[in-house]
Amino acid sequence: MSTAEKAVRPVLIDGEWRQAQHEHTFKATDPNKNELLPVEFPVSRWEDCDAALAAATDAARELRQLPKEKIAAFLECYADRIDAAKDSLVAAAFAETGLAKNPRLADVELPRTSNQLRAAADACRTGNWAMATIDTKTGIRSCYESLGPVCVFGPNNFPFAFGSISGGDFAAAIAAGNPVIGKANSSHPETTYLFAKEALEALKESGLPKATVQLIYRTNHADGERMVADPRNGATGYTGSRNAGLQLKTAADRAGKPIYLELSSVNPVVITPKALEERMEQIVTEFTGSVLMGTGQFCTNPGLVMLQKSDVSDAFIKTVSEKFETTASGTLLSPAVAKSLASSVEKLCDFGANLITGGGEPEPDRCAYANTLLVTSAESFLKNPEGFQTEAFGNAALIVIGDDIAELCAAIRQLEGNLTGCIYSATDGSDDQACQALSDELTPKVGRLLNDKMPTGVAVSPAMNHGGPYPATGHPGFTAVGVPASLLRFGKLTSFDNIRPHRLPDLLGDKNPTGNTWRMIDGTWTCEDVS
Amino acid sequence: MSTAEKAVRPVLIDGEWRQAQHEHTFKATDPNKNELLPVEFPVSRWEDCDAALAAATDAARELRQLPKEKIAAFLECYADRIDAAKDSLVAAAFAETGLAKNPRLADVELPRTSNQLRAAADACRTGNWAMATIDTKTGIRSCYESLGPVCVFGPNNFPFAFGSISGGDFAAAIAAGNPVIGKANSSHPETTYLFAKEALEALKESGLPKATVQLIYRTNHADGERMVADPRNGATGYTGSRNAGLQLKTAADRAGKPIYLELSSVNPVVITPKALEERMEQIVTEFTGSVLMGTGQFCTNPGLVMLQKSDVSDAFIKTVSEKFETTASGTLLSPAVAKSLASSVEKLCDFGANLITGGGEPEPDRCAYANTLLVTSAESFLKNPEGFQTEAFGNAALIVIGDDIAELCAAIRQLEGNLTGCIYSATDGSDDQACQALSDELTPKVGRLLNDKMPTGVAVSPAMNHGGPYPATGHPGFTAVGVPASLLRFGKLTSFDNIRPHRLPDLLGDKNPTGNTWRMIDGTWTCEDVS
Repeated sequence: MSTAEKAVRPVLIDGEWRQAQHEHTFKATDPNKNELLPVEFPVSRWEDCDAALAAATDAARELRQLPKEKIAAFLECYADRIDAAKDSLVAAAFAETGLAKNPRLADVELPRTSNQLRAAADACRTGNWAMATIDTKTGIRSCYESLGPVCVFGPNNFPFAFGSISGGDFAAAIAAGNPVIGKANSSHPETTYLFAKEALEALKESGLPKATVQLIYRTNHADGERMVADPRNGATGYTGSRNAGLQLKTAADRAGKPIYLELSSVNPVVITPKALEERMEQIVTEFTGSVLMGTGQFCTNPGLVMLQKSDVSDAFIKTVSEKFETTASGTLLSPAVAKSLASSVEKLCDFGANLITGGGEPEPDRCAYANTLLVTSAESFLKNPEGFQTEAFGNAALIVIGDDIAELCAAIRQLEGNLTGCIYSATDGSDDQACQALSDELTPKVGRLLNDKMPTGVAVSPAMNHGGPYPATGHPGFTAVGVPASLLRFGKLTSFDNIRPHRLPDLLGDKNPTGNTWRMIDGTWTCEDVS
Repeated sequence: MSTAEKAVRPVLIDGEWRQAQHEHTFKATDPNKNELLPVEFPVSRWEDCDAALAAATDAARELRQLPKEKIAAFLECYADRIDAAKDSLVAAAFAETGLAKNPRLADVELPRTSNQLRAAADACRTGNWAMATIDTKTGIRSCYESLGPVCVFGPNNFPFAFGSISGGDFAAAIAAGNPVIGKANSSHPETTYLFAKEALEALKESGLPKATVQLIYRTNHADGERMVADPRNGATGYTGSRNAGLQLKTAADRAGKPIYLELSSVNPVVITPKALEERMEQIVTEFTGSVLMGTGQFCTNPGLVMLQKSDVSDAFIKTVSEKFETTASGTLLSPAVAKSLASSVEKLCDFGANLITGGGEPEPDRCAYANTLLVTSAESFLKNPEGFQTEAFGNAALIVIGDDIAELCAAIRQLEGNLTGCIYSATDGSDDQACQALSDELTPKVGRLLNDKMPTGVAVSPAMNHGGPYPATGHPGFTAVGVPASLLRFGKLTSFDNIRPHRLPDLLGDKNPTGNTWRMIDGTWTCEDVS
């Protein structure tokens, strides 16, 4: 590493790599060694946020005037550059997160990231996300339009696919026509820096305003809150811990600024005795695979399993426990994650959960924690539903055992909002009635309902909902994954009433802007021109 | 009036007319006489709210199981009953609001209300609002679904079309499958009571859960805030004053409950000198008609006019002023509205606006205030933009005069979010360049942009956006008017991932549920079955 590179990393503001206005710095940790990495990153003062917001405001204005094609071309150029920079991105992310290079980072998350950008480019180009609606009789036409600079706070667990200037929120905000100010996750700042370098080159190549993508690594809490509430800010995307997210939400709400949060979720999985009788081994494999994959550090990790008291449920617990014990525990993302996991497990034990396997303290020489399984009764759960829904983010799960379906239904009724909920039942339909009762309770609580399938693995598909009722997210009507729906979070609905034809946005002119853009004309979805 | 009817009006909870749990009562005022009306209405204690929420929770569960056809049939039955009860509804509303019986109440607002309910019934029946999305390759299907009991707080200015149990929010919430708890506006409780009677009969006729529609007249502020934040509440619709709305917003936001607010808006109208040179008389007629219609008590009343300094602008002000002076001032909705209008005008004068005509105190013998026109310079406006955007709800307008287009653009840049914004320009396009600059600034600030047309008159059309950036509303992505889009506010996005076919909602089955429901199947909008 050269001397220059050892210096404090610059922030990216208004197309320039600048030394941050800062007093403090921080370093990321290599979780495989529990050691600080060498590079220093600045904790920006408000001056940096202010400069980024000012530049983004001008960029937002310029972006509104540009053909969508240019924005789409940027997203594709950036996607190509990400693919080409795979080796350095994977190396940086591995050093900062401990996530496996292969297949996870290089073969799964990186292609998902660049393909997500390409899907967003398609949505931007056709404008299908914008729900163009034309009423010829009233002379009113409407669509979603850009809403201004978007601040994105990325999480620790997906350095690429949910990264603040590479992930789903970024792709959606840009494709909807907005500049993005990324706030790097403090656990992988170097990875984010490398993305920003590629983004800047892609901006230059595609001729977009240079402040379309900006990067700050960290601020103090007060400045973060000030940013999301700033009059120049259009909206915010946040994925991360509940506490930090709710502080931002309070600030944004007070200022009337949309903020889309993806917070905690325990992702309940209900498994009926008949399902276990029928295919115990398969379900054990699916569950342990899902709960331990990525060391359990997924938003949709199945952290809460609900079973009905029975011999086969006991056998399930025993088999899972053995699998947990014989599977090496993976690396966790950071010392903070390991500490928080140990603290959550301790809390659950304090509330009365039985520790079946795992527990204890994090490992000293790397960020890791024993695979942990806890059990409690539905009766106990019902006495302290809030406590037993403490998220243990990582390789841990709590099993809740109910006497019967009615008691499980009662427990489900006490669940907070979750991203997902699953029901495993007999394939022959013999417990369909119980399933119906469980589904009726579970569906209103979750953003995505699954049958016979674990919740990890969030397909980038138009019908995906990676969202759910509070506190899984801040609003039950939006998804963070799935193009084009995820773009709607970063759009402002605008009606054009009696607007002279030559002043209408391309999307709302008589002529279909691309020949294949879906528009609702007089109640009919069509790709035709207005006749 | 019989003795029974003189007693305190009962609340409607769980299908029963009950005496409210209350300590205090209130009466509405006849604004034409400035006298209290005889009937007493209760100020409910929390017990009533709690009982309504409990009953609504059960109703929400039942509604989820019912075929959409039954909900649609209720809406249509209710619409028919409203049409049949026209005379009594109009009489009650006239007594409580002073709005003209004809054409306003009987010939415009009442048919708009029943037709809006019928449009909502159509949306409910086809499910077109729910954006059914089917990805056959991933096995994921999604749609918007009901989200639970909806509290609706209606405004004073539309006793029918925005009424808490008859208006747009009500129609949208019910059509999306949710029960409604209506909080009557205190200025027209008897009108709301009469609607509730019709609604209850319609519920019985159509076999819907009896707690699908409930009515409370008033609570204290703390209980209102508790209601919108209650875990059993799904979402809230509110139309009314900014202060009360923001208090509810704070409470709902803190609990993570969606709340859709329609607050204040000054609805800027920019008129270029060339437009005035070309068609002064026509624009004066349109403007005075719009600003004085309904005594200016519309959400989209054009309260802020922006002109460029010129002889023709002076002439416009003079002509409008004469029109204001020679037009009898209409009745205002309540003593509170008259008082608030006088106070706003006084504030604007204190900030330095020149009173051209009107002003003074409200009339003593009826709720009325002189038609009022104020003028200020863009220079003054720019020194106190917040102050000069004080909403003067009623028959008043402020004209802002800028030296040139650049100064007007600077003033527009200081505008808060508004429901609407208009630009009047020359029909020959000779000032198109100025228009473009004005549009670029105005569009991001408004929910609906108009050309050559006043903003009053909000068509119930799919492309309508009756919404806008904060503080016009609480979120820039939603509309309160326009079916089916208005229903989305009261829906929860739900994905069904690998769900066994017989367990899918009808809307997401392989077969198109109605034969004419629009669904996005593998990226194509179609009414076909899944092939």
